[in-house]
Amino acid sequence: MHNVLIIGGMAAGCKAAARLSRLSSNYQITIVEKSPFISFSSCGLPLYVSGELNEISELIKTSYGIIRDEKYFSQVKGVRVLTKTEVKSINAGQHEVECYNLEKNETFNLYYDSLLIATGSKIINPPFQICSSPLISPFHSPDDAAKLRQAVQAGKISKAVIVGAGFIGCELAESLSSLWGIETILIDKEESILPGCLDKEISAYAVSALKSANILLLLSTIVEKIELDAKGYPLVSLSSGQKITADYVFYCLGVKPDSDLAQKSNIKTGRFGGILVDENMRTSIPEVWAAGDCVEITHLVTGQNDYFSYGSLANRMGKAAADSITGEKTCFKGSAGTLSLKLFDTIISASGLSEKKALENGYSTGAVIGCWTDRPDYHPLAKNLLGKLIYDKSDLRLLGLQLIGEGEVTRYIDVFSDLLSDHKTVYDLTNLEHGYTPAHSSPVSILNNLGYMALNQEVGGIRNFNPLLFSSFQGICIDVRESDETELFPFPEKPLQIPLTGIRSRINDLKKDPGIEMPFLFICEKGPRAYEAARMFANNGFNNVAYLAGGNYLYARLSQSPSIGDFIKTENLSGCTEITNER
Amino acid sequence: MHNVLIIGGMAAGCKAAARLSRLSSNYQITIVEKSPFISFSSCGLPLYVSGELNEISELIKTSYGIIRDEKYFSQVKGVRVLTKTEVKSINAGQHEVECYNLEKNETFNLYYDSLLIATGSKIINPPFQICSSPLISPFHSPDDAAKLRQAVQAGKISKAVIVGAGFIGCELAESLSSLWGIETILIDKEESILPGCLDKEISAYAVSALKSANILLLLSTIVEKIELDAKGYPLVSLSSGQKITADYVFYCLGVKPDSDLAQKSNIKTGRFGGILVDENMRTSIPEVWAAGDCVEITHLVTGQNDYFSYGSLANRMGKAAADSITGEKTCFKGSAGTLSLKLFDTIISASGLSEKKALENGYSTGAVIGCWTDRPDYHPLAKNLLGKLIYDKSDLRLLGLQLIGEGEVTRYIDVFSDLLSDHKTVYDLTNLEHGYTPAHSSPVSILNNLGYMALNQEVGGIRNFNPLLFSSFQGICIDVRESDETELFPFPEKPLQIPLTGIRSRINDLKKDPGIEMPFLFICEKGPRAYEAARMFANNGFNNVAYLAGGNYLYARLSQSPSIGDFIKTENLSGCTEITNER
Repeated sequence: MHNVLIIGGMAAGCKAAARLSRLSSNYQITIVEKSPFISFSSCGLPLYVSGELNEISELIKTSYGIIRDEKYFSQVKGVRVLTKTEVKSINAGQHEVECYNLEKNETFNLYYDSLLIATGSKIINPPFQICSSPLISPFHSPDDAAKLRQAVQAGKISKAVIVGAGFIGCELAESLSSLWGIETILIDKEESILPGCLDKEISAYAVSALKSANILLLLSTIVEKIELDAKGYPLVSLSSGQKITADYVFYCLGVKPDSDLAQKSNIKTGRFGGILVDENMRTSIPEVWAAGDCVEITHLVTGQNDYFSYGSLANRMGKAAADSITGEKTCFKGSAGTLSLKLFDTIISASGLSEKKALENGYSTGAVIGCWTDRPDYHPLAKNLLGKLIYDKSDLRLLGLQLIGEGEVTRYIDVFSDLLSDHKTVYDLTNLEHGYTPAHSSPVSILNNLGYMALNQEVGGIRNFNPLLFSSFQGICIDVRESDETELFPFPEKPLQIPLTGIRSRINDLKKDPGIEMPFLFICEKGPRAYEAARMFANNGFNNVAYLAGGNYLYARLSQSPSIGDFIKTENLSGCTEITNER
Repeated sequence: MHNVLIIGGMAAGCKAAARLSRLSSNYQITIVEKSPFISFSSCGLPLYVSGELNEISELIKTSYGIIRDEKYFSQVKGVRVLTKTEVKSINAGQHEVECYNLEKNETFNLYYDSLLIATGSKIINPPFQICSSPLISPFHSPDDAAKLRQAVQAGKISKAVIVGAGFIGCELAESLSSLWGIETILIDKEESILPGCLDKEISAYAVSALKSANILLLLSTIVEKIELDAKGYPLVSLSSGQKITADYVFYCLGVKPDSDLAQKSNIKTGRFGGILVDENMRTSIPEVWAAGDCVEITHLVTGQNDYFSYGSLANRMGKAAADSITGEKTCFKGSAGTLSLKLFDTIISASGLSEKKALENGYSTGAVIGCWTDRPDYHPLAKNLLGKLIYDKSDLRLLGLQLIGEGEVTRYIDVFSDLLSDHKTVYDLTNLEHGYTPAHSSPVSILNNLGYMALNQEVGGIRNFNPLLFSSFQGICIDVRESDETELFPFPEKPLQIPLTGIRSRINDLKKDPGIEMPFLFICEKGPRAYEAARMFANNGFNNVAYLAGGNYLYARLSQSPSIGDFIKTENLSGCTEITNER
């Protein structure tokens, strides 16, 4: 028998164990897990907190209702599981690990032929001072969630502060405010939510989902310390001098690889602190593999190492490690960082690099933003869908995509993710076929449209003008919507108004070169008509025309955003005598 | 000025016209359309019939509420539109077409520099005799839909018969029965619905959606004639001798390319009757292009010509034709036949070849069927998702996919479609990354899982056993579900019962070689446990094991299917003394 020892019994470890047991009966498989649980779906914790799941044990059940515990793994998989047992050290020379049973206070050694490290992630500790209190807590483990649910159910929380507006912070904010109606304050030092994944304007659009749910969002806000007030309740001090009391404070500052054990054993780790592995999940030490949240992997766009803590990747890595251990053909090439998140009714998804990250990585970065409905406009369920495409201007290679909306969002990110990993270009986007039915999509998909938009910009010379640049715009702004629309939804900066249906006959009324650098910016409700007008003008000899990306629809949402509303307003519109900039 | 003449003002023609007008102001563009409408979204007609859309004009409005009529095209696009005008002939030598104004009874000629034929599709006429009556009608044009809606609203239809269970027939059946509660009978000569796209077992699963909506489905049923009874109501005579009366009868037998004009002009057409075009939409005659439902295109899997009447393809072809006319870089390579359809709450999608078509095309065809939930099992919104993957056994190249479920279905077909057009393999499926969040997907996507399943069959030797083959199964059948499940949902054919949780200890109780060809078939609720058991037995020296694809869940649905329920029941189970086959 070949002894396989797996350190860590969550997604990657359990997947590897199950796969190994299926591949052959020649393996003696042991999982060592320091917590009392194994195979726990921690992605489901927010659902338990919100009350959508009644029992936390739902997160460790099989689809047929059996708890995945030590007994289950032994009976069904023939896998031995030691919970509440910590691995203290690895002796790679002797092929041994030193284990410590936390319950029995016992130390013992286990031999392995193959070792898989799947120790997962650990929370990033706050850089500010925290008072030790059960009312001040991270949100990472089943224990954290169980305590929170108890407190919520007992009516002990009417106001909560969450520090950190990343994935977990946002999901937790939803869990607390949605079903329980808890007054929730979400704080982040960055100027946007999900700053690692979304560009500022897309994030600002997402913010409206949180705002409409009565979550108070404090962005660009630095926490200095969290202490207890005289009554023993948490008191959050901000660098602004403001102090916020709450019944409970959570810090959700993200996670990092839990690679302490590997580092102690001289297994190579990388710049994110994650264990370095090859495409077969092998570490720098023979007969030692690693998989899941404890490793860093190749970013499929940059080719550089990166760190992603996603359950989907952990599963695939666990399987790849098992295949590799048995000698099966396998290959885990990395990740495009593809993600998806639902906040109330808003669905956010992204893949690849944000514009910010593309610029940081030195790409000749181009970007376009577009807004369409996810289904034909006539469909009763049609919802707005906003997309931002990032590409390399030098070769039109795709770099990233961000999508946000309330309807069909996630389907497009999966395709895009695959295109990214194949190093495809903007042209490939325009050739994509999709399963069209009015119930679920428009005949031309948002990916086709974003591709066309990028080509119109790079090849056709019609610029897609990012609303964040609006404050520095100096030129003539023309709103081509119909008068009933401009009355209902006036564009705040009061542009010239020439409806698209009448603009063709008025082209010659305007001076082709008013002597300013970016003379003509067209605006409509979402973008397509403004593009049409810009193109018409360009075809008639007007140089340097552009259309406002996402139109009045996006602009209106951004101008209400706490972080960028004031920023985008322009006082520089010129050439339009009508404009008074009263706001 | 360069004269571009476009024959046909629906998806492909209007898209081409709009694109041309945007690309340059050097084109004088004319659309000639024989109907009174242009740019009509005929995919939305079922929504108008069902009452979900109030006005049929919604289908010709822009997103900002303006009707896309002659005036709109003239004002906004600078495109001249001649409706109610038919092109009678093309004189390619003279670069002229002969037009006939149906209203004014006038004939006139138009000159072109470039000609685009976008004449669309026409209905396939029934092979049986039909009495001429306004109560017996196809369902193809806005007129058909308008008359139907009027009749429905006036309460004139309480019972309808639809002949043809393809896309349109199924959608129409939903429209009539869902909101209006009309007694609807759907007839097809094939033994399944959507026979061109779905294999029999997947189609049979889809049938449950129609049955639960109180639609009477008559499959394998041949219509001999449709006449009128003594009161003037339609009377449908079946080859069985049965006669059905109804207030209204629709025949929806599909569409074919409307290429009469092209054929008359000696433009080459193919085996489907569609105009033959190259990747730039050029026909066999210089300066004549064709696009949309009137052309046949390359099937991206077979490389052979095929015919697809999809609005999404028509749009992309129209754009490609416009680009080609102007000399822009373009390429329309064909289609993988990717489709999506919603019937009540059931979503059906498919791409590439069905198993039947793959076999007909001579592929060494392999297939697997799997059933999972579309989200983690613990998620309150989790729905079952059934998938069938078809691949080439010789090189594991992907050939086709069929998916069906009530939740997240369409997202997977888009990715698969792209993989197909890139000639990817089963291995590529297992490497797919997706945007994972429990609200919208499981950590391991159905595409990953189907890929694993195919590899387990081809490389691992564990056969995924199609339930349609069950009637010829002669061997030992073992149900590995827990006893509470088998009591609640007994497997009809009464197999041996050994729960997975206890099977490991009983392996040696069974004879390794009972002397029959396919000795061991494992069954569970959906498949995964049965696979696990099959693998366990294979690892312990049992040869020739298999697991029932889709488990009891799929089998139960198939056994209720009118077309295959009786077929799959076996009377040949052997080796299990317990089996009595009482049913």
